[in-house]
Amino acid sequence: MRMSKSSLQVGELAAGQALCIPIYRLQPEANTGPSVYIQANVHGAEVQGNAVIFQLMKLLENYRLLGEITLVPLANPLGINQKSGEFTLGRFDPITGNNWNREYLDSAIELPHWYAEHARLDDAGIIQAYRSALVESCQQRLSNDWGITTGHRLALNLQSMAHRADIVLDLHTGPKSCKHLYCPEYEVSAAQYFSIPYTLVIPNSFGGAMDEAAFCPWWRLSEYAASQGRDLGVAVSAFTLELASQERIDLADAEHDALGILTYLSHRGVIAESVRPAAMARYGCYLRNYKKFHAPKAGLVEYVAGVGEPLKAGEPLVNLLRLDHYGTEEALTRISLPVDCVPILHFASASVHQGTELYKVMTEVFPLDS
Amino acid sequence: MRMSKSSLQVGELAAGQALCIPIYRLQPEANTGPSVYIQANVHGAEVQGNAVIFQLMKLLENYRLLGEITLVPLANPLGINQKSGEFTLGRFDPITGNNWNREYLDSAIELPHWYAEHARLDDAGIIQAYRSALVESCQQRLSNDWGITTGHRLALNLQSMAHRADIVLDLHTGPKSCKHLYCPEYEVSAAQYFSIPYTLVIPNSFGGAMDEAAFCPWWRLSEYAASQGRDLGVAVSAFTLELASQERIDLADAEHDALGILTYLSHRGVIAESVRPAAMARYGCYLRNYKKFHAPKAGLVEYVAGVGEPLKAGEPLVNLLRLDHYGTEEALTRISLPVDCVPILHFASASVHQGTELYKVMTEVFPLDS
Amino acid sequence: MRMSKSSLQVGELAAGQALCIPIYRLQPEANTGPSVYIQANVHGAEVQGNAVIFQLMKLLENYRLLGEITLVPLANPLGINQKSGEFTLGRFDPITGNNWNREYLDSAIELPHWYAEHARLDDAGIIQAYRSALVESCQQRLSNDWGITTGHRLALNLQSMAHRADIVLDLHTGPKSCKHLYCPEYEVSAAQYFSIPYTLVIPNSFGGAMDEAAFCPWWRLSEYAASQGRDLGVAVSAFTLELASQERIDLADAEHDALGILTYLSHRGVIAESVRPAAMARYGCYLRNYKKFHAPKAGLVEYVAGVGEPLKAGEPLVNLLRLDHYGTEEALTRISLPVDCVPILHFASASVHQGTELYKVMTEVFPLDS
Amino acid sequence: MRMSKSSLQVGELAAGQALCIPIYRLQPEANTGPSVYIQANVHGAEVQGNAVIFQLMKLLENYRLLGEITLVPLANPLGINQKSGEFTLGRFDPITGNNWNREYLDSAIELPHWYAEHARLDDAGIIQAYRSALVESCQQRLSNDWGITTGHRLALNLQSMAHRADIVLDLHTGPKSCKHLYCPEYEVSAAQYFSIPYTLVIPNSFGGAMDEAAFCPWWRLSEYAASQGRDLGVAVSAFTLELASQERIDLADAEHDALGILTYLSHRGVIAESVRPAAMARYGCYLRNYKKFHAPKAGLVEYVAGVGEPLKAGEPLVNLLRLDHYGTEEALTRISLPVDCVPILHFASASVHQGTELYKVMTEVFPLDS
Repeated sequence: MRMSKSSLQVGELAAGQALCIPIYRLQPEANTGPSVYIQANVHGAEVQGNAVIFQLMKLLENYRLLGEITLVPLANPLGINQKSGEFTLGRFDPITGNNWNREYLDSAIELPHWYAEHARLDDAGIIQAYRSALVESCQQRLSNDWGITTGHRLALNLQSMAHRADIVLDLHTGPKSCKHLYCPEYEVSAAQYFSIPYTLVIPNSFGGAMDEAAFCPWWRLSEYAASQGRDLGVAVSAFTLELASQERIDLADAEHDALGILTYLSHRGVIAESVRPAAMARYGCYLRNYKKFHAPKAGLVEYVAGVGEPLKAGEPLVNLLRLDHYGTEEALTRISLPVDCVPILHFASASVHQGTELYKVMTEVFPLDS
Repeated sequence: MRMSKSSLQVGELAAGQALCIPIYRLQPEANTGPSVYIQANVHGAEVQGNAVIFQLMKLLENYRLLGEITLVPLANPLGINQKSGEFTLGRFDPITGNNWNREYLDSAIELPHWYAEHARLDDAGIIQAYRSALVESCQQRLSNDWGITTGHRLALNLQSMAHRADIVLDLHTGPKSCKHLYCPEYEVSAAQYFSIPYTLVIPNSFGGAMDEAAFCPWWRLSEYAASQGRDLGVAVSAFTLELASQERIDLADAEHDALGILTYLSHRGVIAESVRPAAMARYGCYLRNYKKFHAPKAGLVEYVAGVGEPLKAGEPLVNLLRLDHYGTEEALTRISLPVDCVPILHFASASVHQGTELYKVMTEVFPLDS
Repeated sequence: MRMSKSSLQVGELAAGQALCIPIYRLQPEANTGPSVYIQANVHGAEVQGNAVIFQLMKLLENYRLLGEITLVPLANPLGINQKSGEFTLGRFDPITGNNWNREYLDSAIELPHWYAEHARLDDAGIIQAYRSALVESCQQRLSNDWGITTGHRLALNLQSMAHRADIVLDLHTGPKSCKHLYCPEYEVSAAQYFSIPYTLVIPNSFGGAMDEAAFCPWWRLSEYAASQGRDLGVAVSAFTLELASQERIDLADAEHDALGILTYLSHRGVIAESVRPAAMARYGCYLRNYKKFHAPKAGLVEYVAGVGEPLKAGEPLVNLLRLDHYGTEEALTRISLPVDCVPILHFASASVHQGTELYKVMTEVFPLDS
Repeated sequence: MRMSKSSLQVGELAAGQALCIPIYRLQPEANTGPSVYIQANVHGAEVQGNAVIFQLMKLLENYRLLGEITLVPLANPLGINQKSGEFTLGRFDPITGNNWNREYLDSAIELPHWYAEHARLDDAGIIQAYRSALVESCQQRLSNDWGITTGHRLALNLQSMAHRADIVLDLHTGPKSCKHLYCPEYEVSAAQYFSIPYTLVIPNSFGGAMDEAAFCPWWRLSEYAASQGRDLGVAVSAFTLELASQERIDLADAEHDALGILTYLSHRGVIAESVRPAAMARYGCYLRNYKKFHAPKAGLVEYVAGVGEPLKAGEPLVNLLRLDHYGTEEALTRISLPVDCVPILHFASASVHQGTELYKVMTEVFPLDS
């Protein structure tokens, strides 16, 4: 295995500083396995993925690599560096409000035409050609005559790298959150390898995030090929891992999650050695059953329901404190939900306006086969 | 004419303060004309529309009203009150980054079914029933069991009022901007009444803004009725007026724009008197020819091209200053565009990251008939 | 005991909303004890003090009150409501950067002159006159012809109420913090009553905070009277309680701290009943030995040292992770301090610029007598 | 004349980027004149000083230099790059709220002791020794064992360079402002050389700004030497130039101001050629007569009084619009001041909370001799 480091410029700040991100490439002696792209910290406050990349690189020193791995920590320097008070305001572009993770490109390759032109190729050839077309569409957008936004420039630079890989992992965290995985419907069996208890099963449609940008074009190609009587499979796997809470670095926990990733990579043949999945219960939930609960009124919030812990209908979710109403029954309100659920994440601040997203909860949770 | 004032609560702040907006209702002696809804300041820094509402209310004291007018200034108190340094950070929700003017509801009325149920009604009846259905769909969303976001709550409260009117005007401004009008394609003749030189002709599709939320359902009803052999017309007119620059109150200019609005209202029969349009040249541009130009590199910006002033291809748009490159030709770069255009607005700050939206310009501009 | 509620307007927002704070007044049957003023949440993210006030009011229902207590929760609505991303940006005025807790007035009463004029009064009389003078100086400043800043207006309204009391408690929190008390040097014996393990012993000088604004004028009066041969004592006691971390509501812990406050009030004769201090170790540190440690370089931070737990010189304080330096010894740096200390609080975010205040630690800690 | 460029690292961002500032040094053939230090853009939105440095460097190519000039544009990259919405949030550290221009060091050289040790030196020698001591005190603080804040690190790096010069110019702007000069009382005659109509005459006391940090120690040395019977004069001159409004680059106006600076440098013998001051009226005002006017209530603001234009007592300063009060006399309030004045600057936003600093005005303005 050989490690090389490079640096990619993804932007430039008003005072002239280049925005560069570090890129680590691990190359096997003999390249026989699938290739992997892993990035972290596209949302500025979600730093733990960097620690996971750190631990994964250390772990990999003890394994035999079969596929190339590209690791991109600190993927959004503008977001990471944007402080507002004592916290990182890294979820959206501070100028436009655009969510950094909704800026990826939905490649507008016109499949009937494209497929007709390439149908004569064998499977490997068609995959190679499609991959090139995806990278090319990113590059074309990057060189648009009228320029592109700061967020698109970053996203397309990252996406160009991701399109070159067979496996794409985007490391995020929630605000105050337990670990959970976004996993496309057609690939739910992958969930049993990561060290993550809760899996959101998402449909094969594009919403602007990296995982979708990586797998949707391949799923569409697969569907179209099937309609033409050819079974291509979905050549690319992409997942978003939500590794607990933002504004938190925990090196021991990062090693645990790095091992989970290693297990999946082992399953996929990226390393030669076999790594056993952690023995743990794993649960799934369809995205349509993933519910946001918004504050019905404003106030101070005691978060009572623990993330990752099943909550029965009617059990307390939060206590809402209204000191302007002491002496009335409005002063302290216990709020609960009408259905059984597993709270996955909650808001980061202890005071909320009416309408603030208080909790996201999984309902209709089911065990995943292992 | 009778003026009444009321107050509508649209939210609640963390420390308990109710967010209320003032509503003025002008009622005619005899209600024979179309009804009007005018709001201002949904984006917090775009204050001039309030001054226009102020001047319009003063002007209307001298006219005979035939239709009811509802005026909602200061429509987004959370946005208006959100300061960051010496400016108003009012374009998006500071918690989520969501643009306050992309939170309106695209009423999901299933037309074939709905139309079949109501086809027996006469035109007035069908319009009345459809209006009720639109208001009802807003109210249903407002009472969602899982709550709704702060921005949706505000938007749906405003939209519920707008749906009750035949004419909807949403008063905005650009950052540093000349006056321009967003006008739906089917109603471009309306542009000749306002005191606004540049008109963007927009397609009949929903993008989340108030004007679209107001007219799109009616355009769809009109199309569907036509497909069923019935000519209903488009019963509701809706426009967004961009009244020059943000962070600016100019009472004299506000009177000028109030008079332009009055002219349109006169044309529509909302007042009894006839008001002549201002004699001025007016130009149009299709939305697809409205171009954003993003900073190709970072630096300090001298905005050379004036807004509202035609600019030939190759003429200087901005000077980009890079003090970190003094002594090289990078120190001062003159940037121009490859096509003739009319700059409509430019960025508000004099220093930019790479990718910042520097200018929006109209290309393929054409004179509007008057 | 009689509870009355009122509301005080302390400002007005751009869109017209009045900024009001709730005020609760508990009045004894017979007013024989000292009077008390307690406020919370002057820094917007420091919400736990409100929960403590809530629990204290509930507790007091079971005691016999001898002195009047004024409680002001949610004391800074502008700060509480100012969100930036998912956190509260409530430490400073978002327009000016001024720390909300440095806006109090240092009453410029010219003591030699004032004392000469009032020396003939008995002790109670001189205290009453001085109190009136302090309130008056706040009121004069509030009615300044040229206006006063938003922060001064809030602070002076609060300070006017505080000056009317014999005991002043300002409830704050740190960012990520253990409980600690700011206690003036001359009154260190009070520390044994609160349920707070660490006490900062502060000198009798004015730095702009509420506690100093409340006791400094009285300490100066006492000193001056002593220089004139009269022992007045220091008539007013004032403390800042830092009740653990910001952005946190914990009702059970709030009851614990409310009981600590009740214990001090019992000691001072504000309630008739005797309440025993919690049995716990308490430690002190002189303010000059309270050290700030700033990040020597930038990076991601794993906070290793627990707040409130003694740390030996050389033991790990933080791990600093630099993913842009993987493969070098800069990638992971263990940082420690050269002296024994007790870490009291640390920064709230897990990534830091060079120079960010990482930790505040007590050195030269000593046990407090109980 | 020889120009050299270097780069100084003044900080490091969370994601690892070094914060560097460009430094240009112009060196004469023979160094016979005083040395000069000029910096710009310490407040992030105040960019015009960079354009002035650009034009000054271009102008100087045509003159014969006698003293060394150090030019530091873009002096605060963190502040310049900190956007919040469409504006630069560059006045204070976004984490702490600390004003970037209040972070300089008041060198605590204990004069009686220091002077006694150096009194034997001749004037040049004592000046050289004092200069070294000032630089040394900055360097000591920079290497503090417990680290220093982000803002101090920047300020002390700049101050170390400034202390090496005989003339220090700090280029700022106001929010919406006319040009004005901060000039120490003992050097008011310098005001006649710059192209600036209004001069604030400031006392010789330290408030944390660069100009004060540069000249106060020298003024104190001069005073102390005088008390010992020796006339040293004040060896260093320092001024803050406020070059109109923030968020504005105007290259033509920058050349005008560069010429004004050149005129002062010519007068001081930094260039060989004689340059005539612009013929213009110049006025002064003592800092104690420079008044801030705070918004007496909240609302929308039409700024009526022009900056730099004398305003009689009672003439309109602003119109304050309250759309929530239409129909009452509160709807539109005309606000004026009770004294004659010259408005120098006003707030940048058109809506204000109660207490916002609306205007700064000079009162008791007097003509400066030319």
